[in-house]
Amino acid sequence: MLITLTTDFGLQDSFVGIMKGVIAGINSTAAVIDLTHNIPAQDVMAGALTLRHSIRYFPRGTIHVAVVDPGVGSARRPVLIECDGSYLIGPDNGVLSLAIAGKKPGLIVHLANSAYHLQPMSTTFHGRDIFAPVAAHLSLGVPATALGRSLQTFDRLALPEVIRAAAEIVGEIVYIDGFGNLFTNIEEHDLTGLPRQEIEITLGAIRISGLASNYAAANAGNFVAVVNSWGLLEIAVSQGSAQQNTGAKIGDKVKVRIASYIAGGRK
Amino acid sequence: MLITLTTDFGLQDSFVGIMKGVIAGINSTAAVIDLTHNIPAQDVMAGALTLRHSIRYFPRGTIHVAVVDPGVGSARRPVLIECDGSYLIGPDNGVLSLAIAGKKPGLIVHLANSAYHLQPMSTTFHGRDIFAPVAAHLSLGVPATALGRSLQTFDRLALPEVIRAAAEIVGEIVYIDGFGNLFTNIEEHDLTGLPRQEIEITLGAIRISGLASNYAAANAGNFVAVVNSWGLLEIAVSQGSAQQNTGAKIGDKVKVRIASYIAGGRK
Amino acid sequence: MLITLTTDFGLQDSFVGIMKGVIAGINSTAAVIDLTHNIPAQDVMAGALTLRHSIRYFPRGTIHVAVVDPGVGSARRPVLIECDGSYLIGPDNGVLSLAIAGKKPGLIVHLANSAYHLQPMSTTFHGRDIFAPVAAHLSLGVPATALGRSLQTFDRLALPEVIRAAAEIVGEIVYIDGFGNLFTNIEEHDLTGLPRQEIEITLGAIRISGLASNYAAANAGNFVAVVNSWGLLEIAVSQGSAQQNTGAKIGDKVKVRIASYIAGGRK
Repeated sequence: MLITLTTDFGLQDSFVGIMKGVIAGINSTAAVIDLTHNIPAQDVMAGALTLRHSIRYFPRGTIHVAVVDPGVGSARRPVLIECDGSYLIGPDNGVLSLAIAGKKPGLIVHLANSAYHLQPMSTTFHGRDIFAPVAAHLSLGVPATALGRSLQTFDRLALPEVIRAAAEIVGEIVYIDGFGNLFTNIEEHDLTGLPRQEIEITLGAIRISGLASNYAAANAGNFVAVVNSWGLLEIAVSQGSAQQNTGAKIGDKVKVRIASYIAGGRK
Repeated sequence: MLITLTTDFGLQDSFVGIMKGVIAGINSTAAVIDLTHNIPAQDVMAGALTLRHSIRYFPRGTIHVAVVDPGVGSARRPVLIECDGSYLIGPDNGVLSLAIAGKKPGLIVHLANSAYHLQPMSTTFHGRDIFAPVAAHLSLGVPATALGRSLQTFDRLALPEVIRAAAEIVGEIVYIDGFGNLFTNIEEHDLTGLPRQEIEITLGAIRISGLASNYAAANAGNFVAVVNSWGLLEIAVSQGSAQQNTGAKIGDKVKVRIASYIAGGRK
Repeated sequence: MLITLTTDFGLQDSFVGIMKGVIAGINSTAAVIDLTHNIPAQDVMAGALTLRHSIRYFPRGTIHVAVVDPGVGSARRPVLIECDGSYLIGPDNGVLSLAIAGKKPGLIVHLANSAYHLQPMSTTFHGRDIFAPVAAHLSLGVPATALGRSLQTFDRLALPEVIRAAAEIVGEIVYIDGFGNLFTNIEEHDLTGLPRQEIEITLGAIRISGLASNYAAANAGNFVAVVNSWGLLEIAVSQGSAQQNTGAKIGDKVKVRIASYIAGGRK
């Protein structure tokens, strides 16, 4: 059985290794894959977006553990959500929610059964004491309903909305990857029907003409806009970093217009 | 059989991957877990503390390989230590010692049997040429005694001592994690009997009142003191970095007092 | 079956985790080892050198996937190369070539059979959509010839040549590791016959006398030259960073002379 881990623990310390030790001690045959441990510290939205765009690439039945948990040890609940045959485990702070936006989960469980937790329980590391052992027990076949009591709802994050006006679409930067590529909340379907060569994408003073099919379509060092592997409109610099070139940050507005509208009004 | 790796090799290069290739070539079914490869370069103490606070979370029989090895290729000996049914493998420079402080090992072996090493042997990468192949052969069932000759002692690091005076406990920062949390050498048992709400923790000009049960007990950006997941007194900033806020470094003194002592002498 | 991954994707995002999810979905028993994901962005040469000096440590039959791919989505071909019973998979831009320099591959395949790719295919992430699924299918026993059509040649990178004059050998820095060690293109065999104690290594104004057998031969903070674990002449600083001490960069010249030549001509 496959378990994935997504955290903001970083790789400097042994925290992630300790979680894997706990899992191995409970189920020595569990396979563990790291999604990433470099979610910016306490950035619940970045964790939620990572899960949203990653879990479709894992087989049905995978157990996805996400620990971005500024409220660890406080009143926020540890939860398990089953949806479409796969499992999401983590704090009930929204980090699990974008992966199943618009879907109705089959089961939501408050992970309150301490028989499946590590003892003694710390107040600062529930990744080790709750989420890892619960995932390992689940991977062994313990039914999700045994791990705690059922809930009716869980905490959902809202993605910033794309605003569609007559002549433009306004979105914003929601994620910046390690290459410095700027991911917007504008999805491929938001661009349906627009002529790829004629649209103009703007970010502050940066203006990009047309949607390219790949980074290499632009010369090295030039800006390029693509629909990226997450299905999102992305502003990049070919063989460079759009983030460093622009200083852009999460929340900055990105606009998409049809060039002919700007030049001469509606056709 | 489970093997863990702890090194200061970082993840920029393929050194860790090469060690895993060597292990896989000897025992294709060995499971390998990274504790961390980002021990600060040549920081034997940080490696030793990492092992000390991590190996209890792994099943008995696990083989822990630690390579923080500024003396690689010189006279320092490669060793294996068996203790409580688990194994520690690395250079005999103290990196293995804190994990079994106060314990008497069952077996100490100088890893001198070159039949279990990679040939040709480099003088700069014993992780690849000695420690990885030895761990892999051990995981296959080669007896530890076959790997070299027995030793009576091994090199032990000393943790800085906590000083207990009448009115205060003086410790120091021994580890700083990737969140910038400041770990001291003051352990939970050092605080036994002290009233959690009445103690005062100081680090230079920083004064923290009371021991919190978790980070979220403080507002974002405020200092907070907790007993952390390693069982150590820790100074943190809620949703921030205590290291960046204070500029603190390893060795800086941290004092614990009972507030009522300071205000008005002993009760 | 063992699959290794080498990329410039970094570990900030979930891209590598997604590749592993794709592999696990096709072959749940494939073992995956990370060589490194921190190849400098778009640095095909660094990726090629990493493969060159790493794959000999993996068992025959291993499938090595390398994705340093500035031309992703453009006309460059995805290829598989079989050589000496192991497999190299990646873009045909030279990244695979140094690992088999001087060798004649048994098979070169243009990975054009979309039946073994992920659909829908992105134009920006062939690691996920082509290279990971092809490696996974190959690990299941799909014959390499089924993955596309045979090619006669593939793109080869040239390593900068070592220049041998009467009184000196001139090489250059080709790789800088995470410790700041400076790796040159001067190989151990280039130094054959030279007296180790009498040679002098220069890099700009830095002059190092003699080749040491290990880092600890120099006092902490001093320069030292060694033949490193990749078999290359390396300039290092004992317990420090030669890169930070010198500001050296890829391409900087390194000269090796016999000291007696300099002082008084040929003996």
